[in-house]
Amino acid sequence: MTYIYNAWYPAGWVHELEKGPIARKFLDIPVMIYRLSTGVLAALHDRCPHRFAPFSYGTIVEDKVRCIYHGLEFDSAGRCVGNALCFAAPKVAKVRSFPVFEQDNVVWIWMGEEEPADTSTIPRYAYHNDPKYRCVYGNNYTKADYRLLCDNLMDLTHIVLLHPVFDALHRKQSFKSWEEGDDVLASYSAVEPHEEYHTINTIRWAAPGNHDLEMHIIPDFGKGPVIQEWSANLLTPETKYTSHYLWSVAVSVDSPETDEQIYDRMIQVVDREDSWMIEGVQDRMGEADLFDLDPVLIATDAAGVRMRRKLAAMVEKDAARRAARAASREAAPVSA
Amino acid sequence: MTYIYNAWYPAGWVHELEKGPIARKFLDIPVMIYRLSTGVLAALHDRCPHRFAPFSYGTIVEDKVRCIYHGLEFDSAGRCVGNALCFAAPKVAKVRSFPVFEQDNVVWIWMGEEEPADTSTIPRYAYHNDPKYRCVYGNNYTKADYRLLCDNLMDLTHIVLLHPVFDALHRKQSFKSWEEGDDVLASYSAVEPHEEYHTINTIRWAAPGNHDLEMHIIPDFGKGPVIQEWSANLLTPETKYTSHYLWSVAVSVDSPETDEQIYDRMIQVVDREDSWMIEGVQDRMGEADLFDLDPVLIATDAAGVRMRRKLAAMVEKDAARRAARAASREAAPVSA
Amino acid sequence: MTYIYNAWYPAGWVHELEKGPIARKFLDIPVMIYRLSTGVLAALHDRCPHRFAPFSYGTIVEDKVRCIYHGLEFDSAGRCVGNALCFAAPKVAKVRSFPVFEQDNVVWIWMGEEEPADTSTIPRYAYHNDPKYRCVYGNNYTKADYRLLCDNLMDLTHIVLLHPVFDALHRKQSFKSWEEGDDVLASYSAVEPHEEYHTINTIRWAAPGNHDLEMHIIPDFGKGPVIQEWSANLLTPETKYTSHYLWSVAVSVDSPETDEQIYDRMIQVVDREDSWMIEGVQDRMGEADLFDLDPVLIATDAAGVRMRRKLAAMVEKDAARRAARAASREAAPVSA
Repeated sequence: MTYIYNAWYPAGWVHELEKGPIARKFLDIPVMIYRLSTGVLAALHDRCPHRFAPFSYGTIVEDKVRCIYHGLEFDSAGRCVGNALCFAAPKVAKVRSFPVFEQDNVVWIWMGEEEPADTSTIPRYAYHNDPKYRCVYGNNYTKADYRLLCDNLMDLTHIVLLHPVFDALHRKQSFKSWEEGDDVLASYSAVEPHEEYHTINTIRWAAPGNHDLEMHIIPDFGKGPVIQEWSANLLTPETKYTSHYLWSVAVSVDSPETDEQIYDRMIQVVDREDSWMIEGVQDRMGEADLFDLDPVLIATDAAGVRMRRKLAAMVEKDAARRAARAASREAAPVSA
Repeated sequence: MTYIYNAWYPAGWVHELEKGPIARKFLDIPVMIYRLSTGVLAALHDRCPHRFAPFSYGTIVEDKVRCIYHGLEFDSAGRCVGNALCFAAPKVAKVRSFPVFEQDNVVWIWMGEEEPADTSTIPRYAYHNDPKYRCVYGNNYTKADYRLLCDNLMDLTHIVLLHPVFDALHRKQSFKSWEEGDDVLASYSAVEPHEEYHTINTIRWAAPGNHDLEMHIIPDFGKGPVIQEWSANLLTPETKYTSHYLWSVAVSVDSPETDEQIYDRMIQVVDREDSWMIEGVQDRMGEADLFDLDPVLIATDAAGVRMRRKLAAMVEKDAARRAARAASREAAPVSA
Repeated sequence: MTYIYNAWYPAGWVHELEKGPIARKFLDIPVMIYRLSTGVLAALHDRCPHRFAPFSYGTIVEDKVRCIYHGLEFDSAGRCVGNALCFAAPKVAKVRSFPVFEQDNVVWIWMGEEEPADTSTIPRYAYHNDPKYRCVYGNNYTKADYRLLCDNLMDLTHIVLLHPVFDALHRKQSFKSWEEGDDVLASYSAVEPHEEYHTINTIRWAAPGNHDLEMHIIPDFGKGPVIQEWSANLLTPETKYTSHYLWSVAVSVDSPETDEQIYDRMIQVVDREDSWMIEGVQDRMGEADLFDLDPVLIATDAAGVRMRRKLAAMVEKDAARRAARAASREAAPVSA
């Protein structure tokens, strides 16, 4: 198993909900996320318990999810509360609902059933709401294990050759990595030979697949003003070998780059370069796990290896928790 | 196993044969159906026993199926009777032939080897040949278990929301279901609140996947003339998760609706609504069987559940018959 | 297993390398073949041992393969000899290199690890370099087991019906087959009823999937000059059910047929007829092996059956060799 179930996952951008519900699979489970008239978000298993129709094919009527197949209606807790036809609503019908939370323009969903969904543990991307920044958002879909995308993000030396737009080949690189609680951080520094231009990129991984990238650009031998930019890179496995990838870039409101220029650059970097590469890596790895293939590790893998170790420990802990819960359910008398 | 082998299956419309042989898979078996110069239909396993080329890639010459790969020729009983090249025909070469029968504009094929193919058991769709009716025909292909399409047809309350063209949401619905021999029937009645308009749809399921829909439309508080229309909905599994779906609509020759209007409406209803929904259901069910997923059953499932029970019993009986036959073959001395 | 690993395989045409490296999978293994500045060919496993990126996504810099993901550089022996970034190259990183050889305009690759790659065993197609001939080359890709393509080539009576361009239906056919060392040969003769036109096609199979076709066309009751043409038909499995197919046609420099006419004819014959047929056969066979389906064999199968027997024996011998080598590796002390 490669998933942590008891975790908050980035499900989409808040502004995506303006066009209607978000219907996506996370961890192999189809989910529909929608906004109630009260403004509160709700999320249900996107599968009617009657005949297994996707709710997302249907409509939402007075805050009730109406299945368009035979008319059963459910509230946001997953209780069957109506039937659009003139027949009785089966009270026993129950749909799994998911804790869902919006923060920093991200919709978060909790995919576990064994641990409480504590919103205080959700990583922050406050710059999405900071008036000092102008933000550009995008959605990528990559046919690869989400962990390969994490690997990609944790070793930022990959930008030197894979992303020529950053023009980094002739800069002197250095890096370090460390841990802060459950997070893994890495800082990558690049200096032009004559020191006139300096970048420091610091990436913070928060499990399972959230990456916060802080970029400092120090021009003119450090005499000019430092430019600070941010980029959120938020991954959720759709299936074992496909991933949802939300990305944002936050630049100063005064940045000369237009939103369109930033978007076009990111489509090049994320879709045409990162995603292309990671799908190629997945093809070359087949269904093997990374460490089963004995990768030759080098110094710049330090952050990625830290991340992989933490992630593997969390996956193991989560699986144990799930197994214990399943065993206790099995053992419980039916009337209990 | 989800198939009944010893059964007649709808293979296509008779008029499809005007364009040449029908080459389709039924129950995972590729078959070629063609018309002999005598007017009689024939059906062979669409696979040459020499090098396994599809016969349907080749030609029919003087009522013999000629394999275009190396020239072997077979008669409609599957005997090798010639070689288009100047070499000997291997008398030992034998192709499975299938009983095939045309009736009511439907080509029927018998896929079993253990029971006699009794044409008197084929359900009738006599309106296809009744001069009182004008008929429109179509072919749908749905990527789902054929039983999910049967479920769809047996619960006609699905038309209320899934097929807005029928404008049925505000009508009062009632229904009943019953059995007649091996068939399952259900009648769905819909009345406008002020009774000015009334429809009664009666569907008859005949195993494995044949559905005959009789529609009565009673306008003007029952004062105007009753309109009677019919629709055949004939399903054959191609594979476990793909299905051939033949549909027809028979309207009075005096109906104001043109053939084109009927066809366009059915493409909307069958292809864009039913097929779309059932493929969505299949996606949500994955490879699980319906009852393994514990569906919440409601009153309007009555007909579908009757149908499923009968079908499951028939599948089981057919499998037992096939196993017994296979065992007796195994036990028989070779010279017997 | 259906592959012989310890064998030379045709990987591509030499002129394909003018456009850059050839990146293809052979026997499920991704390989990149490229030309060094010395003119020598090299081939590496197309997968970086660091993070499993495809080398073919990257570049070749001063004869070193540079991985575009994180910059590791490898020489043609597969040794890590550099890092495009300013970090150390891991000396332990090692990529499998493959013996590769160019001859007669074909790039050959040796896919085994247990036997020496003896280039003297590579079959010759000398007409590709013979000034008496004008050659036309093509690449086909067929979604089928390469052995089904071998079967197709070894029974040339298939041209009578499958390739109408050869207009051979009314000619009297005869054939014979024999063996020369490990090769299997077959000669197919076709005579017009009144003897005014005579063709003799002789095909030589050399394991695993190399076919050399020599065509003699004897016009005018043998009074006119004999026309001799050649065609190489070189197969390499990409995977168990997909194949690379290199074909050439060599005609006299004086032939009235233009290169374009020959190319168009071969696209019809190979892509639209042979490949179409063999993919149909593969569909009808599913994942079954030819002889498990009990094909009805006829006289003209003689050459194909000889070929299949030799091939099966070679596959078995190769598998035994590989197993013995693997066992001896397992048994060897680590320090040995």
